[in-house]
Formats: sequence, structure tokens, C-alpha cells
Amino acid sequence: MHIAAKKVVPTFMGTVPPAVILAAGEGNRLNGVNGGSPKPLTPVLGLTLLERAILSCKEVGVMEFYVVIGYRSHIIVPYLSALEQRLSVLIQPVENPNWREGNGSSALSAAPYISSSFFLLMCDHLFDPAILRLLLTAGTNTTDCWLAVDRHTERVFDLDDATKVILNRDVIVGIGKEKTSFDAVDTGIFLCQPSLFDALEVAKDMGRHSLSAGIVELIKGREFRAVTIGERFWFDVDTPKSLGSAKRSLLQSLSKPDEDGFVSRYLNRPLSRRISEILVRTPISPNGISLISFAVAIIGAIMFCLGGYIWTMLAGLVIQLSSIVDGCDGEVARLKFQSSKFGGWFDTILDRYADTAIVVGVSFGYWLAHPHAAVWLGAIFALTGFIMASYTKKEFVIRYQSNPPGGLFGKLIKRDVRIFAIMLGAIVNLPYEAMLLAGFLSHIGIGLMLIKGHRQTI
Amino acid sequence: MHIAAKKVVPTFMGTVPPAVILAAGEGNRLNGVNGGSPKPLTPVLGLTLLERAILSCKEVGVMEFYVVIGYRSHIIVPYLSALEQRLSVLIQPVENPNWREGNGSSALSAAPYISSSFFLLMCDHLFDPAILRLLLTAGTNTTDCWLAVDRHTERVFDLDDATKVILNRDVIVGIGKEKTSFDAVDTGIFLCQPSLFDALEVAKDMGRHSLSAGIVELIKGREFRAVTIGERFWFDVDTPKSLGSAKRSLLQSLSKPDEDGFVSRYLNRPLSRRISEILVRTPISPNGISLISFAVAIIGAIMFCLGGYIWTMLAGLVIQLSSIVDGCDGEVARLKFQSSKFGGWFDTILDRYADTAIVVGVSFGYWLAHPHAAVWLGAIFALTGFIMASYTKKEFVIRYQSNPPGGLFGKLIKRDVRIFAIMLGAIVNLPYEAMLLAGFLSHIGIGLMLIKGHRQTI
Repeated sequence: MHIAAKKVVPTFMGTVPPAVILAAGEGNRLNGVNGGSPKPLTPVLGLTLLERAILSCKEVGVMEFYVVIGYRSHIIVPYLSALEQRLSVLIQPVENPNWREGNGSSALSAAPYISSSFFLLMCDHLFDPAILRLLLTAGTNTTDCWLAVDRHTERVFDLDDATKVILNRDVIVGIGKEKTSFDAVDTGIFLCQPSLFDALEVAKDMGRHSLSAGIVELIKGREFRAVTIGERFWFDVDTPKSLGSAKRSLLQSLSKPDEDGFVSRYLNRPLSRRISEILVRTPISPNGISLISFAVAIIGAIMFCLGGYIWTMLAGLVIQLSSIVDGCDGEVARLKFQSSKFGGWFDTILDRYADTAIVVGVSFGYWLAHPHAAVWLGAIFALTGFIMASYTKKEFVIRYQSNPPGGLFGKLIKRDVRIFAIMLGAIVNLPYEAMLLAGFLSHIGIGLMLIKGHRQTI
Repeated sequence: MHIAAKKVVPTFMGTVPPAVILAAGEGNRLNGVNGGSPKPLTPVLGLTLLERAILSCKEVGVMEFYVVIGYRSHIIVPYLSALEQRLSVLIQPVENPNWREGNGSSALSAAPYISSSFFLLMCDHLFDPAILRLLLTAGTNTTDCWLAVDRHTERVFDLDDATKVILNRDVIVGIGKEKTSFDAVDTGIFLCQPSLFDALEVAKDMGRHSLSAGIVELIKGREFRAVTIGERFWFDVDTPKSLGSAKRSLLQSLSKPDEDGFVSRYLNRPLSRRISEILVRTPISPNGISLISFAVAIIGAIMFCLGGYIWTMLAGLVIQLSSIVDGCDGEVARLKFQSSKFGGWFDTILDRYADTAIVVGVSFGYWLAHPHAAVWLGAIFALTGFIMASYTKKEFVIRYQSNPPGGLFGKLIKRDVRIFAIMLGAIVNLPYEAMLLAGFLSHIGIGLMLIKGHRQTI
């Protein structure tokens, strides 16, 4: 009997290679913006550069780190020791007394610790951990070295200072800062073999101490290949100006254009990013932020209950603020590598309860002026629409293991849009009517989803 | 780099073996209960024995059937031709003029059509299609023949008439109807190799024409192995008495003890099974039944709106009836092999809307006597509890890919229990209070789920 096997997806649990992180240089161009700390300890949105590098690796399962230090290493060593405790990973500081020679010399000083494939990273590079996964996938069952490269050279912040790469298909045939014609830019994210150390020794014997010089030796044997990172985020932090730009790019990389509704994309996200930028510097956890957003919604709901135009309008603004803050929990979680399944679950449950509170508040405010039972029927009509729009989608995901047919209308019945509609309604003193309209659209959306789901499965 | 591969799960799409179904015998013991049709055309809960056998195979992907016929084959051939059209499968009738010799002779007549592994089935055996999946899993990468056996010999309807099996671990070392000491019973469900035909020829040359005689030849080479079916359902239909028992067992096998709440298990299921037994004989589709259950709930909701004890009590009984009918859609779908993802999705969405209608009805009825806004706050409180109890579970399934922590309390906040509670409340003229209590328990259940989920993920 011939039975087709499912595609084997490699898992890296427990067998993920260690990472060598180069953090030995002086980084004097950042002097003045990092409060006199060594460059690896420069804070970027709540975490130091070194902590970001280590946590990015930990996201894909790396548990063993060799951090090469040189300049002001006496400050970095105790920091690494504290980090090792806090992050529950193994961190071995590797001193390179010759760090001034170049980054090749620093990489080489990790050689005694490494006997199989390893990640090689620059501590001053921010990047999307998904790039490490690309390297792991590419590196499976090969003995080549791999470099993650960016073909979108136009988006590189300081192209003059970047290391350029010339490619023949995925084989690296040229590398260096001075190339004028090139295919991509070196992101400084490598999956290497111990053969790199031999190449660095050869370069060293010729008096060349840069990492690129070692790679030049390796590419002679065509053993160095490139993985293209596509649209994924990376950023080389060198100067105060690039640090500001790096923060903006990192925040921008948190957007979820596929998931976000229109209001979220153009109003809430730009504002929530600024709030997240402040929140990451506080010890408030992502779940704490979810609770704050929920509390703000409850305050808005109570303000609606008071009735009268002033309270109603203010309540509208408050629930919109809650909706904006609602984006921060996920952003802070991703910025601080604190994303959790529980967090996502907790947030969606709180959102539905916040919706309930808002519907009750708006309806109660309306009922004060119009004391008919029909007001409450409308409330239940809208509330069922709001909760069921989410529920119907979730049921679809469970049953079909794919996203429900959405389209433009699917984006219109998302939470960001309905809260925004009620806020607009509140400003013109028609929050109840706006809520009914949003509820009506939600029920239509549920009906469309059922029709599309039915067609899709025939 | 050593990378652990995920366990390879075999998929059988497109490579599922064909099935040989033996339907040649006279089955004279069933005369009188099947309206004079040949045994393979005996209807069991809406489908003939032959159709059930073919649809059970189709569930696991079998698309090619060889049906061996003999007794009154002129009636069966046109039926098979119609079935082939209707079920979109390939059905080849195989005439065995010597069908009176024995079932070994019938099996042998399929030999010219078979060149690789194949399922071998008796058309008068009802069984859970999961047994075929067990055989497929066992049969992957082996050249042995496999027989599904039942070790629960005490549950076999007519043990005297059953074929007994003696096992040495999973190797069959003895088989026959007359064994007095045995380990398991032959279910008549096989995954065979063409070597079976050689064995049947050998037995035939010795004047033995039963399937067991062929197997006896095969077990000499220790090439015949057994798969234990555990608690899975199978039933051999031979006599009018066994036909009645088979129907009951088949209906019983539809229970989902893990999923059903207490009320469903002890009250709704026993009643819904009787209704399903009638519904399978009609052309009403499972989705149609979902709509009928929904319509009954709406009628109950409207009756609640009318107020007064009589209407309230009747409304309680009507919504309980709706809850009972709500179990029939799934039962009929499984009985008629019409289960679909859309059906399950549609049903759960309708259930939530039915809950909404019931809450509105109960609350409106109560509001007629107590016209306070608080009545509607209670309605929204209960409704949010009902919908969110399901929603919270679904979100958990999506995020953790496993069932939420439930336990006893998880069963208490299921729909069957809440509808039953409202019905009891209606009988004592306190439906609103019962609804509030059920809503309160639902919110407590959601809170417990969040706490347990949080603990589970730390």
C-alpha cells in the first residue's frame, strides 16, 4: 500500500544551535544618547540592545549564548550575569582583549566554545525573529554558512556604511562595504559552521581582522549562501539619528495590516504606538494594559449612563480612548517579548465584556429619555450582533482551520469600527442610533459569512 | 545541524485501497422483515445495509468498490448502478454463480479485479468507520493481512454464531466458529493482500469454501494479524431480532459522552434518538432539522412574551422540546453520513440566536409584570453569560489547540443545562429567576476557565 506522507516540518526544539553575539566594539557614535553606558546596554523601547538580541534568539528556541565583549567589559559582565538569571538562558561572556582589531577578531574569540553550527549576530542590530527561522529552514541538512540579506537596499538607513553583497543565485560571490554594484545588503544575521573560524584564521594571518575578510575566504569555496528576508524588519543602530529611526521602524513593524480594521490602521495604531512607546518603559504587563483598557471602557459606559449631551460626548471620547489603548497590550507584549496565548485569550474575552458594558451604558442613557422596553430590545439586538460577529468568525476558524470569508465587509464589522461609530454618534448626540446601526451591520455581516461559508463548502 | 523531524502522519487521500463487499448470500433468516428484498437492501435507519457499508468506506476515502453478488442479483445490479450515480463512487458488481458454496468462494470471485491491498467487508455488518482507519494505520508499510477483532466478546449479540479468533500478541494463530477458548471475535472487517486469494484457492482445492478456511491457510505463515477495535461499534445483522438490536446499538453509538452535558445525556439523547429514528426516514436534511429546532425555540420565546402562568409553563416545555430536537441534526447527519463542517457551524450560530430569543422572551414576559429597567439589565447579564460561556471556550480551543479546562462545572454551564433550568423555572413560574441563576453560573464558569487557563500556561 502506497501512502503519501505529509510534508515533514522540521522542529528545532532542543536542537536549536547556540548564538554568538558580537558586543565588543566601542560604538562611540552613540555616545551622548545612552547615558554613558556601553553601546550594548543602550535602551531601545524598554529593553537594551543586548537583551533584544538575546530575546529575539530565545523566541526561536536558542538557549545558549556566547557574548563577545571587549570595550568596557567590566560593566557588561555583571549585566550578563543578571540577564542569565532573569531570562533563564545560558550566557557565557567571552572576553576579546584584541577587540580593537576588528569584528573578525571578536568572532574568532568564540571559536573555543563552538563545535557545530551557530547563529552569529551583531548586538546593535534589531531584527524580526522570523529571520532566524528562515536561516534555520535554509540551514537544515547543509554544511554551508548562511547570511540573511535584504534585497530592498532602498530601505537601508545608512547604505554607505552598510556591507554589500553580490549574489549568483543564492551563492555569495562578493562582499564588502566598498562595492558600488551589488544585489543585496548584509543584515549581520548569520547561521554559520565552525569552518568560519578557519577562514577567519586565514584572513588574520594575512593581517585582515574584519568579519568580511573571513567571509571573503569562505566564498572562494562557494560555501557561503544567502537567504533573502523579504519584507521582514531589521535595523542597524549606529548613530543617535539611526537610533530614533530604529525605534520608529520597530514600532511600525508591529502593525498587523491583515488583521487591523480601517480605524485601527489609520487612527488607533498611530496613537497606540506612541502610548506603547511610553508604556514599555514602565513595569506594566500586557495583561495589565488589557485591564486598563477594560477599565477605561467601563468608565465610558458609566458616563453614558449619566445621560445628557456633555456626558454622552465625553463618554464617546473615553470609549475611543479605550479602543486605542486596547491596541497597546499586544504592542507592548511584542516589544518586550511577553506575548502569550493567555494574554491574547484574556484580551478578547475582556473586549466582549467591554462591548457589553458600552451597550448597557448607551442604552441606559437613551432609556432615561425614552423609557420604553423597545430600547432594551435594541440593546440586545446590537449586543448580539457585536458578540456574534466575533463568535461566528471563531467558530469558522475552529471548523475550517482557516480565516472566514471576510472581504471589505468583514473589516467593517470589526470592533475598532463599531466603537468609532458609537463615538461619532455620541459627538452628534445619537450614540444609541449609531449603536443600532453598527449592530445591524454586524448581523448582516454574520449572514454574509454564513452564506459565503455555505458556498465555500459545497 | 541535527533537527528533530515531526512524526510523519500518513494521509490516505487518493491512495486508499479499494473495498470488496460480500453481498452474495441468501440471508434467509431476515425474511419477513425486509419486505421481500434481498438482504443487502434491508433498510437500517434510513439507509440499506449495502449503502451503509459503502458510505462507511467512503468516509475514510475509499472510492472503488467490488460488490460480490449471487442470490437475486438481478435486483441488486440495478440498485448498485443507481447507487454508483448517487454516491459518486465506482461500483463494480461481481457475480458469483457459486455463491451457495460459501463466502470464501464469493471473496475469490473478486480476485481478477484486485492487484494490491484491499478492504474486505461483509455487507450485513454495521460498523464505526474509525475501524477502517485503525486498519489503514496498522497496514501501512506491511505486507500482512489484517483483521479487526473485538476483545469485548461479552457484548457480541450472537456469540455462538460468531467467528472466534485466537491470538498470540497481534498474530492470529487460530480462527473458527467452533472454538471454545478464544481471545476475540472476528468483526468481518479486513485489510487484505492479494495473497488471500492464493490461500482461498488452496482451501478450495481441499474442498473448503469458507473465508475462515482461507484464513486458516494464511495463518500458517503467520501473515495474518489482528487490530483490536476497543470500544468502537460493530454489529452483525442476521436475524429480525438482531436487526432491532443493531438499530438500537447504532443509535446508541451516536452519543458523545464527553461532549454531552448531564441533561443531554440522561434526558435529551434518549428522546432525540427516538425522534432521529423517525427523521432519518424523511428527506429532511440535518441543516433543516437545525432550522426546525431554531423555529421551535422562537415559538417558545414568543409564548414567554405573552406572560401569564399557562403560557409561561407551555413556553418552558416548548424550549425544552427545541433543545431535544437540537440533538437530532447531528444524529441524523451521522446516521446518513451527511456530517459537514458547515452543518456544525450553522447549528452553533443558530443556538446562540435561539438563546438570545429565549432571553428576550423570558425577560419581556417578566417585564410585563415588573416594568423596571433592571429587568433588562438582568437580561443582558444572563445573555452575555450564555454566549460568552461558549465564546470563551472557542477562543481557548483556537489559542491552545486543546479543550478548555472544564470539569464538573464546565458541564454545568452547557446549553442543555441552562435550557432545562429555564424550563424548570417556567414550571414553577420563575423563569426569569432561573435564567438569572443560569447566567450567574455561566459568568462564574467563565471566570473559573480564565483562572484555570492562566494557571495552566504559567
